[in-house]
Amino acid sequence: MLADWIAVDWGTTHLRAWAMSAAGEVQATAASDAGMNGLSRDGFEPALLDLVGGWLAEGRQTPVIACGMVGARQGWAEAPYRAVPCTPLDAGAMIAAPCSDPRLSVRLIAGLSQASPADVMRGEETQIAGLLAARPDFDGVLCLPGTHSKWARISAGEVVSFQTFMTGELFALLAEQSVLRHSVAAAGWDDDAFAEALSDAISRPDRIGARLFTLRAEALLSGLAPEAARARLSGALIGVELAAARPYWLGQDIAVIGAAGIAGTYVAALTAQGALPQQYDGDEMTRAGLTAAHAQRKGASQ
Amino acid sequence: MLADWIAVDWGTTHLRAWAMSAAGEVQATAASDAGMNGLSRDGFEPALLDLVGGWLAEGRQTPVIACGMVGARQGWAEAPYRAVPCTPLDAGAMIAAPCSDPRLSVRLIAGLSQASPADVMRGEETQIAGLLAARPDFDGVLCLPGTHSKWARISAGEVVSFQTFMTGELFALLAEQSVLRHSVAAAGWDDDAFAEALSDAISRPDRIGARLFTLRAEALLSGLAPEAARARLSGALIGVELAAARPYWLGQDIAVIGAAGIAGTYVAALTAQGALPQQYDGDEMTRAGLTAAHAQRKGASQ
Repeated sequence: MLADWIAVDWGTTHLRAWAMSAAGEVQATAASDAGMNGLSRDGFEPALLDLVGGWLAEGRQTPVIACGMVGARQGWAEAPYRAVPCTPLDAGAMIAAPCSDPRLSVRLIAGLSQASPADVMRGEETQIAGLLAARPDFDGVLCLPGTHSKWARISAGEVVSFQTFMTGELFALLAEQSVLRHSVAAAGWDDDAFAEALSDAISRPDRIGARLFTLRAEALLSGLAPEAARARLSGALIGVELAAARPYWLGQDIAVIGAAGIAGTYVAALTAQGALPQQYDGDEMTRAGLTAAHAQRKGASQ
Repeated sequence: MLADWIAVDWGTTHLRAWAMSAAGEVQATAASDAGMNGLSRDGFEPALLDLVGGWLAEGRQTPVIACGMVGARQGWAEAPYRAVPCTPLDAGAMIAAPCSDPRLSVRLIAGLSQASPADVMRGEETQIAGLLAARPDFDGVLCLPGTHSKWARISAGEVVSFQTFMTGELFALLAEQSVLRHSVAAAGWDDDAFAEALSDAISRPDRIGARLFTLRAEALLSGLAPEAARARLSGALIGVELAAARPYWLGQDIAVIGAAGIAGTYVAALTAQGALPQQYDGDEMTRAGLTAAHAQRKGASQ
């Protein structure tokens, strides 16, 4: 099985690739943990060949389109940020990565930047392009929850502005590395505890600093269940994010893009606030965005 | 040099001891990193003997009074929490730790608990007792900044209520382990950056979630100095704490107890808000509190 072209999502800690047909269908998938963090500049091409070498035809170049931290300053090659307002993709701004294997032709998608308030994204612009490929007239707000949640205002096919929240990373640090790790379960959930903590945090986000240690104290004093503590920690942090992001989502058409679990949590939270978000799968949007990028590259080179 | 009695501050990661004279003077000091975290239950006595064995007379018991996590469930022996409102110390609630060396007589000071909102402290009650030994008529609010900052309302010699903020731990996790570690200096400071971030955070604490990643983005986009980023992160987190603790300190007599650096930072922050805090050294208050505890024990046993 040979690929017509290869779609790649290359982040800080992961590398995923899809062998695509000329008709835009996924023929094969592959993944490894060869993320940007573990690679020196000359380690990217071997890591990619390890994963997709079997999909490459001899005697011709197979186009590879990659998004994510692979295009950061510490990545394979730097694809400089494009400043918003702008379309999520621009064929001319896709940087060629240096390759020694003649079968490879690799392009890296540029991230987006915002001057004030200062902000950056790498990878999410591709998911945004994926959504716009499916809904070219979308006018509203996208929420992309994750380690670093992004909120983006979309209008007339452009990213108008965006804002990053470190909610996922804060949750992981607090749940796994802080004193709360003794009281917060590594898995498990409690819907009611989440809903209550979310509601409290949205209505009084200024009290976040006072809420965290309460989880530890309740565990010590009254046996708070670790699963409930996990749900409350998540609810408190997401609530603070939703409160600060309210100017983004209030009264807007909202789409939430992400893996089923976390996206579903945000959809539930926004719905509880009276919003009517639609949910999209993060992987599908990534592939759709890479497909749009490939089509733009083909158009640009013809 | 033999001690009349020994004062001990035994926390999660440190062990400090003072050889005290009958007149209450410090004759010698010693410290090690044998904190509670690294010890099993039968490791406490040897760790203490390693540090203070040379201060013990043969043929009689030397009283040792210890505060801190040594009295936690995972410590040498559990000294159950005492519920507020209550005095910071109670001679009857100092638990005897099991010792095999006949020269030792060890008592552990109990921490304090609060049912609602749930909260606990271990160690700070001794510093509070130290302040009350110097100012028995103090009526107001104590701020004890640190890994877990405590705010305590004091009236008529009792701790009326208290609240814990994880500010110091959040700062360490974000500065050293999150994506911000690339942009935040390990040392260094910028007074103006701190003051501005503090003021922003106090007036809009609900926006904390949106402020953090800005430090990373400004470093990438406009070369924010790592020392300024460090001061801004600190100002943002302390500002959120001061905003949530405002019901505690507004219009109150305030004393800040802690090491010179962090206590000075809080004093400056509170002063900028129009408060008139007084500053006390944390180590001195710990020793004064242990001295008060020793006097209470002597009184109780006579």
